[in-house]
Amino acid sequence: MPDAIRWENNQLHLLDQTLLPREVVYVHCRTHEIVCDAIRRLAVRGAPAIGVAAAYGLVVGAMEQGTDASRWTREHLERVRADLAATRPTAVNLFWALERMWKTLEWHWGERDLLERLAAEACAIHEEDIAMNRRMGGFGAALLNDGDGVLTHCNAGALATGGYGTALGVIRAAVEQGKRIHVYADETRPLLQGARLTAYELAADNIPVTLICDGMAASLMRRGEVKAVIVGSDRTVANGDVANKIGTYGVAVLAKHHGIPFYVALPSSTIDLSLKNGDQIPIEERRPEEVRGYKDCQWAADVPVWNPAFDVTPHELVSALITEKGVIRPPYDVNIPRALRG
Amino acid sequence: MPDAIRWENNQLHLLDQTLLPREVVYVHCRTHEIVCDAIRRLAVRGAPAIGVAAAYGLVVGAMEQGTDASRWTREHLERVRADLAATRPTAVNLFWALERMWKTLEWHWGERDLLERLAAEACAIHEEDIAMNRRMGGFGAALLNDGDGVLTHCNAGALATGGYGTALGVIRAAVEQGKRIHVYADETRPLLQGARLTAYELAADNIPVTLICDGMAASLMRRGEVKAVIVGSDRTVANGDVANKIGTYGVAVLAKHHGIPFYVALPSSTIDLSLKNGDQIPIEERRPEEVRGYKDCQWAADVPVWNPAFDVTPHELVSALITEKGVIRPPYDVNIPRALRG
Repeated sequence: MPDAIRWENNQLHLLDQTLLPREVVYVHCRTHEIVCDAIRRLAVRGAPAIGVAAAYGLVVGAMEQGTDASRWTREHLERVRADLAATRPTAVNLFWALERMWKTLEWHWGERDLLERLAAEACAIHEEDIAMNRRMGGFGAALLNDGDGVLTHCNAGALATGGYGTALGVIRAAVEQGKRIHVYADETRPLLQGARLTAYELAADNIPVTLICDGMAASLMRRGEVKAVIVGSDRTVANGDVANKIGTYGVAVLAKHHGIPFYVALPSSTIDLSLKNGDQIPIEERRPEEVRGYKDCQWAADVPVWNPAFDVTPHELVSALITEKGVIRPPYDVNIPRALRG
Repeated sequence: MPDAIRWENNQLHLLDQTLLPREVVYVHCRTHEIVCDAIRRLAVRGAPAIGVAAAYGLVVGAMEQGTDASRWTREHLERVRADLAATRPTAVNLFWALERMWKTLEWHWGERDLLERLAAEACAIHEEDIAMNRRMGGFGAALLNDGDGVLTHCNAGALATGGYGTALGVIRAAVEQGKRIHVYADETRPLLQGARLTAYELAADNIPVTLICDGMAASLMRRGEVKAVIVGSDRTVANGDVANKIGTYGVAVLAKHHGIPFYVALPSSTIDLSLKNGDQIPIEERRPEEVRGYKDCQWAADVPVWNPAFDVTPHELVSALITEKGVIRPPYDVNIPRALRG
């Protein structure tokens, strides 16, 4: 399967996920504006992948003033950072990665190898993300049993991260342990990340997957086909409330009604302890055309639309958070800080 | 707004709802096979409308042997009836309407005006359906308050019935009483009846409507925007279990979780007392292409699909059934037969 993010010879190439699964096309990000555009139009998406792309984006932006760091100006770098930060509001990894890159910039400002240090930091964020995914996969796989049907929503896979995946990383780890897992993928309207990306990723790995429309999940649960739900997260806050792709909250309510555990897999970079509860998470609203159709296929009557890109699942509905630090159980307000310290 | 079903000069014209809202095209049903095809491919859809179309379809099929009823053969008519009955399995109105037409045929077999009697019976089914919708609208409107936001799933409107609508009929009646109602329409994947038909119908009537993807309903409820859910039904059985468009059951679970009443509006022709509970209702499964995309827009990865056209909402989740006989409350096993007798 193609990597979502490639960094080679100090050049950034982002897989254009809006074209998947039909076409595999990389966007060569010669400027930070191209990175911003790729994030805004979801060519690269998924909280961890956005963080990695933004980190590389800062390096790309810096190099707009040449590879000689002594000629870089703070004004330009601040604009690059602000442009990248303004692309999408909900996923916290974007701000987390930019903050981390900015610290590197400040610590090594004026040093001759600043470009190398900055690029190395972005690569570290990228590699650490993959490592975190693998660790959380190991912890999460223990929650799945041989023969389980597992429902997931949107795409929290290799394509949404540095690689391997959060929710799909847990499933991959379980499969690597020899467990037979059958995945049910919600198509995830409006942008169909489940139908286009999750189905594509799992088929590429020969993991059995059945695609359903979002409205079919309840029936599937009632038939007893779903033993666990696993999703990713764009931002998880201090009390354990989870922002994730629109539709996630409804799946969590359905899981509770049917007595099915609802797990969220996320790297700790996705946790925002500065917010007390999910009501404080900014929720992006996107263009009505996304709901009135899909790309050039516009099928709806011309009426007003509500198009929030994310929703918030309250912590009461979350059975456990699966992180690279281990599986965190309620009470989250106590156990999240404890896990992050540990 | 164009009528879904037109019968003029003993000729049947069905609005091709697969082309809405972009094009208004009628299919001239010269043979009963054309009617069967229209039902199968959802050019005409919605349990009451399917019943009306099938009734006219039997007249069309009879006239394949000419307008002189003395030349009609039972063999041919039985084949027409069987062809129409085989089109779709879930909506009971199809079988109910064909049964009623068949009785007319048997009672008047050999009479000179058999064609007129048969056509009159189909027209009666059509007109009675509209009258039932208006009566249930009156009963149901009392359940809605001025200023309410009302969520509906799929299209249970004029297009799904002889005219006026079941769920949308209740909303129309409330609006006619001067109540301000804001409708939230689930787009209803995979065939998008909410986005294409409900939005179109309500906009044509100047009833405020906001279109959402199916996965957004939960968030809308959590925000307090939804005061009631009203849907239609393809078949409701003796214990009050309701078969309706896939996705309905999930909406019912969400409504219960948020303390929102969940109403089903249906003519008594949709009630099937021969089945004890919803597990006995045959659920149609349709082609995977419907889930992998929409029409020529095929976006999904090539993986297996589950595509049930309907689901069953257990009676425990149904706050009331709104019928032309009045509003039926639990216990349904007692109150449905009582209402039908009364």
